[in-house]
Amino acid sequence: MWRTLTCTLTAGGSAASSRLSMEGPASPARAPGALPYYVAFSQLLGLIVVAMTGAWLGMYRGGIAWESALQFNVHPLCMIIGLVFLQGDALLVYRVFRNEAKRTTKVLHGLLHVFAFVIALVGLVAVFEHHRKKGYADLYSLHSWCGILVFALFFAQWLVGFSFFLFPGASFSLRSRYRPQHVFFGAAIFLLSVATALLGLKEALLFELGTKYSMFEPEGVLANVLGLLLATFATVILYILTRADWKRPLQAEEQALSMDFKTLTEGDSPSSQ
Amino acid sequence: MWRTLTCTLTAGGSAASSRLSMEGPASPARAPGALPYYVAFSQLLGLIVVAMTGAWLGMYRGGIAWESALQFNVHPLCMIIGLVFLQGDALLVYRVFRNEAKRTTKVLHGLLHVFAFVIALVGLVAVFEHHRKKGYADLYSLHSWCGILVFALFFAQWLVGFSFFLFPGASFSLRSRYRPQHVFFGAAIFLLSVATALLGLKEALLFELGTKYSMFEPEGVLANVLGLLLATFATVILYILTRADWKRPLQAEEQALSMDFKTLTEGDSPSSQ
Repeated sequence: MWRTLTCTLTAGGSAASSRLSMEGPASPARAPGALPYYVAFSQLLGLIVVAMTGAWLGMYRGGIAWESALQFNVHPLCMIIGLVFLQGDALLVYRVFRNEAKRTTKVLHGLLHVFAFVIALVGLVAVFEHHRKKGYADLYSLHSWCGILVFALFFAQWLVGFSFFLFPGASFSLRSRYRPQHVFFGAAIFLLSVATALLGLKEALLFELGTKYSMFEPEGVLANVLGLLLATFATVILYILTRADWKRPLQAEEQALSMDFKTLTEGDSPSSQ
Repeated sequence: MWRTLTCTLTAGGSAASSRLSMEGPASPARAPGALPYYVAFSQLLGLIVVAMTGAWLGMYRGGIAWESALQFNVHPLCMIIGLVFLQGDALLVYRVFRNEAKRTTKVLHGLLHVFAFVIALVGLVAVFEHHRKKGYADLYSLHSWCGILVFALFFAQWLVGFSFFLFPGASFSLRSRYRPQHVFFGAAIFLLSVATALLGLKEALLFELGTKYSMFEPEGVLANVLGLLLATFATVILYILTRADWKRPLQAEEQALSMDFKTLTEGDSPSSQ
């Protein structure tokens, strides 16, 4: 019922907006009070996760280099930066830039995904080259299967999103119908990325530590804490994304467009709402 | 905008419901067309996941027994049945029983969680007893840390949910404010349960198969497919839960209550909407 009440307040056309303006002066910067704190917390968590991954690789795995056996270590670091931190931030763009023009926000959302993808691609090349040099088999583990699935879904989602929302752009009604699917699959791909990272972390620990893992070795404890922080980061991002009252409000021009669309499709005049 | 339009149609009070009734005869059984197919698909996936877990344990791990070394195998089977299949189904109750009395649906939701918890508890006892008999260390791995976290969160969520929504029950406004948190954390705990299952599956494979895992052993391939199906099950459950137009509609008496509440809190008469 709370959700329903929220909907009544935030959704709809002129009736709802006139009610809102009765409650106080209409201001474009009407950001929900707690949102900035949650966003700041998510960024802190994300940076800690990236830093801990670096610390783990530096302290226990000899650091990072491209032209040596350390090439493997490029893989986890790139994946955490690209497919966890940057992908998570790309999902938050519509919550953080609530009052920017829709197009600017879309371009930023798309660009962050491009950065995430390119960084993840470097991480992918690193692990395949490492396997080739060492003569290891490719793509046999659950981690690798999930990882390839994430890459395929991420790429497909980006292509469809780009062609529907940016260029060439689909019709208003098609975009409206596709948008909730895009939002859902965006969150699902992000969650699968985090799950894949957890599987990879676990694999790296079991391969290297073996039975020493059960003796509470410092590396094992550090990696377990890293795993819990990864799960917490995903939870905070998901929380910010799904809070109904934190969703991006319609800007004036979008609202007008939406009313026109309703008028066209429902034969309803905006004022009769 | 699609979401906004949907909200305008389904949410709100008398204005929205009169519009709905203008579109066709009001019927309580107005279930969204595709929902039953998605629910059926989720059930099929869930049963396949349970059956494959059983098949994996039967074919490659010697089956299940309480009083022997096979006691460990009780653990994955109970966790998949309790914390994945039953927990997932408990979340769907409000979508499937759309037109039952709210109280009946709540009791079913709570009971399914009790069944899930009891079955998971048997699985938890099995692994601790197995460790004790073999002299293995407890709670050193990321899987075990995540598992204990799932248990603690699941129990806390059930207790708070029970005391807010069933007995003794909180005030209308408190329940309204807590409901979205309960829904979010319910989904988050379910997702963490599935991630924990994936970590456990991976652990079981690496402990047992070792380097044979990279030779595409049938057990490894079976378990990888099981892992992907687990992730797909979680995705389908999440999709059904988050579809805005599949949310449980307010029943007549709840709608009246919601209107009374709005009248009381906003000083707004129901007819002025």
